[in-house]
Amino acid sequence: MSHPLSVCILGASGYTGIELVRLLLAHPHVKITALSADKQAGKYLHELFPSVYGHSLPVMQKIDEINFSKIDLVFCCLPHGTTHTVIQNLPLNLKVIDLSADFRLFDLHVYEKWYGAHHAPALQPSFVYGLTEHARDALKTARLVANPGCYPTASTLPLIPLLQQQAIHHEHIIIDAKSGVSGAGRALREGSLAAEVGEGFKAYSLGAHRHFPEITQTLNTYTSKNVLCTFSPHLLPMNRGILSTIYVRPMVGQTSDSLRDILVQSYAHEPFIQVLPGGVQPNTHMVRGSNSCHMNVFAGYQTDMVIIVSVIDNLVKGASGQAIQNMNVMYGFEETVGLPRVGVFP
Amino acid sequence: MSHPLSVCILGASGYTGIELVRLLLAHPHVKITALSADKQAGKYLHELFPSVYGHSLPVMQKIDEINFSKIDLVFCCLPHGTTHTVIQNLPLNLKVIDLSADFRLFDLHVYEKWYGAHHAPALQPSFVYGLTEHARDALKTARLVANPGCYPTASTLPLIPLLQQQAIHHEHIIIDAKSGVSGAGRALREGSLAAEVGEGFKAYSLGAHRHFPEITQTLNTYTSKNVLCTFSPHLLPMNRGILSTIYVRPMVGQTSDSLRDILVQSYAHEPFIQVLPGGVQPNTHMVRGSNSCHMNVFAGYQTDMVIIVSVIDNLVKGASGQAIQNMNVMYGFEETVGLPRVGVFP
Amino acid sequence: MSHPLSVCILGASGYTGIELVRLLLAHPHVKITALSADKQAGKYLHELFPSVYGHSLPVMQKIDEINFSKIDLVFCCLPHGTTHTVIQNLPLNLKVIDLSADFRLFDLHVYEKWYGAHHAPALQPSFVYGLTEHARDALKTARLVANPGCYPTASTLPLIPLLQQQAIHHEHIIIDAKSGVSGAGRALREGSLAAEVGEGFKAYSLGAHRHFPEITQTLNTYTSKNVLCTFSPHLLPMNRGILSTIYVRPMVGQTSDSLRDILVQSYAHEPFIQVLPGGVQPNTHMVRGSNSCHMNVFAGYQTDMVIIVSVIDNLVKGASGQAIQNMNVMYGFEETVGLPRVGVFP
Amino acid sequence: MSHPLSVCILGASGYTGIELVRLLLAHPHVKITALSADKQAGKYLHELFPSVYGHSLPVMQKIDEINFSKIDLVFCCLPHGTTHTVIQNLPLNLKVIDLSADFRLFDLHVYEKWYGAHHAPALQPSFVYGLTEHARDALKTARLVANPGCYPTASTLPLIPLLQQQAIHHEHIIIDAKSGVSGAGRALREGSLAAEVGEGFKAYSLGAHRHFPEITQTLNTYTSKNVLCTFSPHLLPMNRGILSTIYVRPMVGQTSDSLRDILVQSYAHEPFIQVLPGGVQPNTHMVRGSNSCHMNVFAGYQTDMVIIVSVIDNLVKGASGQAIQNMNVMYGFEETVGLPRVGVFP
Repeated sequence: MSHPLSVCILGASGYTGIELVRLLLAHPHVKITALSADKQAGKYLHELFPSVYGHSLPVMQKIDEINFSKIDLVFCCLPHGTTHTVIQNLPLNLKVIDLSADFRLFDLHVYEKWYGAHHAPALQPSFVYGLTEHARDALKTARLVANPGCYPTASTLPLIPLLQQQAIHHEHIIIDAKSGVSGAGRALREGSLAAEVGEGFKAYSLGAHRHFPEITQTLNTYTSKNVLCTFSPHLLPMNRGILSTIYVRPMVGQTSDSLRDILVQSYAHEPFIQVLPGGVQPNTHMVRGSNSCHMNVFAGYQTDMVIIVSVIDNLVKGASGQAIQNMNVMYGFEETVGLPRVGVFP
Repeated sequence: MSHPLSVCILGASGYTGIELVRLLLAHPHVKITALSADKQAGKYLHELFPSVYGHSLPVMQKIDEINFSKIDLVFCCLPHGTTHTVIQNLPLNLKVIDLSADFRLFDLHVYEKWYGAHHAPALQPSFVYGLTEHARDALKTARLVANPGCYPTASTLPLIPLLQQQAIHHEHIIIDAKSGVSGAGRALREGSLAAEVGEGFKAYSLGAHRHFPEITQTLNTYTSKNVLCTFSPHLLPMNRGILSTIYVRPMVGQTSDSLRDILVQSYAHEPFIQVLPGGVQPNTHMVRGSNSCHMNVFAGYQTDMVIIVSVIDNLVKGASGQAIQNMNVMYGFEETVGLPRVGVFP
Repeated sequence: MSHPLSVCILGASGYTGIELVRLLLAHPHVKITALSADKQAGKYLHELFPSVYGHSLPVMQKIDEINFSKIDLVFCCLPHGTTHTVIQNLPLNLKVIDLSADFRLFDLHVYEKWYGAHHAPALQPSFVYGLTEHARDALKTARLVANPGCYPTASTLPLIPLLQQQAIHHEHIIIDAKSGVSGAGRALREGSLAAEVGEGFKAYSLGAHRHFPEITQTLNTYTSKNVLCTFSPHLLPMNRGILSTIYVRPMVGQTSDSLRDILVQSYAHEPFIQVLPGGVQPNTHMVRGSNSCHMNVFAGYQTDMVIIVSVIDNLVKGASGQAIQNMNVMYGFEETVGLPRVGVFP
Repeated sequence: MSHPLSVCILGASGYTGIELVRLLLAHPHVKITALSADKQAGKYLHELFPSVYGHSLPVMQKIDEINFSKIDLVFCCLPHGTTHTVIQNLPLNLKVIDLSADFRLFDLHVYEKWYGAHHAPALQPSFVYGLTEHARDALKTARLVANPGCYPTASTLPLIPLLQQQAIHHEHIIIDAKSGVSGAGRALREGSLAAEVGEGFKAYSLGAHRHFPEITQTLNTYTSKNVLCTFSPHLLPMNRGILSTIYVRPMVGQTSDSLRDILVQSYAHEPFIQVLPGGVQPNTHMVRGSNSCHMNVFAGYQTDMVIIVSVIDNLVKGASGQAIQNMNVMYGFEETVGLPRVGVFP
């Protein structure tokens, strides 16, 4: 394109905000024109995160101080609940990629059960759910994109092809998921303190995690049946990475090898999804800092129970990286531009 | 007793060895009389582990240099496969607590399938499997004790009462287990290097872990049916701790609450097993360095699938601590003596 | 003694509070009679820290609800600044060990420069500074004890004998100190979040840390000269442990070996201080969870610059453990009772 | 350029090797044509490091199997001691960037004192020491480049301008340095095991580290005097990052502010060196995965002692990143191309 895309990041002072900035500063077709962070308005981002010191970035403003007339695209990294109103008030010509959960659930009743009142119900139908590999056609013409959650991305990418091809039962799917602590964001809670997280490990929100309806919705979108699953998130003593261990029942005639073949074929041409060679364990370490998803399939001890493992970096493919991937599709850029594919190891 | 129990630790230079020493140095009824470490013979343990510097400990010897006539009890921390022969050659009056896997599997065929040739089959029937809370009567008269593995301890303690009381189905039990890296021992492997473990997370040995037959054997020992389970170990980026997330199907009429009640009642008088208050997540951090096991039961999103979570310190209740607990029972000491019950947090 | 010592912990909900509870629950001469935590009044400690679940502990109260008539000794773990008034209002017969900094600085002007107004100046002269190994005589008759800070403990223990024996210059001492994150306490700050601390390392409060005047005061107390030093704290990505690397200038005729000899002789009979064998590096890992201090002396590349390294667990010897050690001295208990001497490794 | 630069990496299976691959795969002017790893010959790099799975890379070969006729540039990541001979046997038209220490020390006597016999003394004078910011002119025409060590890079970058401008004394410089564990490489040692490194901290090689003569040589190269310094490395419980805390004596009239001004001016136009705003602490976290060096200057408590802090990622600016930066200079590429400048935080 002749001039760079002018983007604004709302909520730049959180972890998905700084990750967007890290990635966009290296993106050849983008210029960051505005940053918001209500409590930090008037400061520069490097005052919070010296990682960007030396780079030219606009001063952070309050949202209502931003001149949106010069902006093409808004990345919205605001907390759940506050996003509805903010996006509703943006100029209608702006494109928006929302990293919050506020527009991910299509069914208002489901949304309200899990998150409370929906303040922009009229806008909901215009949103495309941006699980990139499965949403490209819709993304190309979308104005509003709901960027998927980290757990749903890691968990549904391997399940969708298997359900689509009726290779596994849609009931009693168990998703045992583990996330690094950056997934909890930058909010101040005792449970996120280093001294409590380090050298500890626990499950949390069992039976009550808000990503559950998003996972179910995404899986149901791709199958005619009503998926029943159990989803158990755990907190890992590390910064980045999600690993999902998924237990599925193969249909008659299917084995761990045949399920793996389906994934290999389904994702053969995907630059960011790698079905690893047989027997190789996906490791969060290998995708850290990258937009890649690694997955594989393993036999257990029972032939009627197969184990799938998938990993992503929760802040990249699980948030800011997938948002940029969606941007690339929306604007016709090469889909991989600006997105690391090789993890930072060790 | 009038004079302290004289104990010997074979294989003192590994992690279970140094953990036994740490705990036994504070045990009022025990004196450490001999230590072996073949490759380190002639050195003092503090040369490997300065944590014990300043404590009076015997120099490490080769096993065949040890004068067993002064020893009452041997803790055997040798690698799998070498233990058979060593124990077979010990004087017959000695009591032995073996922390290896060599005598844990009663069925020689099963042993040989998973570990290779068994070199002391005649000795196998004399061994008591020392899951303390469920083996006290046998322990009181035992000469030879096979100390349970770490994963089997964490996983079977909550399952045994539920299976005994026929409260859950014995099929399709899924054990998704996560262990700190000390569980891999002190052997030198790339996969155990700090730069590879830190900030990474992966599953390993899916469908092929040697603790699987031990778990199955233990569960079957306490139920008339043939338990079918899936067991998936994962490597946590931390030193100590095992957490097992266990997915079970309740029998008709059972709920997560009723399952929890069974555990509460079953373990009400156990000093080292705590069924946490409803809703409280077991956290490895809370039992680190202690011999405690914390467990709890949670509802998932499907009424026919209940989630159990249990945690132990793999080196204490999962190895050296349980060995001392077994010693206490064998010798009629108070069962809790010398064993921390409160975890080192943070 | 005929009945156990009745103790109260004010500010039990912080890290030094829970560490006192962990240690005191295993102390044979002590009963915990009261716990305070203003914001958590009405809760049990296990609701915050399940590590103590199953142990009988009093419900947490507000300070003014506590019946001090049944208490012998108060451990005060309240924040700096609030402690003056609380202790001033306690019954005069109570003994007090204060883990805050409020009564550590003898000179009110120095206190006020670093901490602000002193609200109990009349009480200050009654306090004994409890660096146990150097304060036993005063402790035996003390009613009020100011428990030393973590950095001052780690840094002054090796320096005091060397300064006392005029073996090193008292000027240009450099203390480069590194602490685990539990030293920052349980207060909620972005800088203490796991995602920020993990995999990061930085110095902090250079030229402005409140432990500087405490270090200087302690060193000056033991030498006739005016010690000049530089003190640089750093934040380690781990939970527990302080390591001080100290650069000193030996007096003419002194070498690293002769300095080490002085420390060996000075601390030969101390149960909690170990001067390691020549060449062995002190490692925080080896004292974790214990009340031990490991130290050693090393030659550098210049003969006029010698390097001393010392390590402690900041929550034990640097706080709650030393407080109990002081209690043991005050009440004539064996000094080591209830205090682990072997670190939890690995 | 019309066709990409054809590069070969010798010793690709170590941490600097995989880091070169990660960075070069994203470099627009380079093609990786050959990889060596003697023990892993015949394997693909993704079999060791799945992070690169899906990228087209040559199979690993033994060095003597490589066809060097198609190669323009060799990155040599072999162990110290073996590199001399390998490089001596390479075709003379090849350019070489050596990441080992084998050609870093100009003085053969010094080399042999610290490393043992030098096997290619005739080649030594042809090597340029590649501390990029201070060696550009020589690099432009160099055929052979000795890439600096990680500690020397972090430590000398801030000291060189201050010594050049005679702003600090050249004696009694103290460098207290701390490194993440990847600096120890992928060799198998107990001291590098995760269970030993995690939650521990220690100094090592005090008075005996091989980077000491390299630091001294580099500093002396830029001043007419004979620098005397003390250098103390420590092992951090994290993967990547070096922080150097450096204690210097300012010349009369100099202060921490004036020293900082010198650094600001000296490095004002350097894309990879950032002197942070006054008071901001350099943090390894902020440069992780990037080629940036952050530094700053702080007043201590004594006016005659100033504290400098600098941080780099030991595998990037301290190894593979600086190697690529040197390549960019040697071949006239834009110096920043292919090199991340923003750290991966959190």
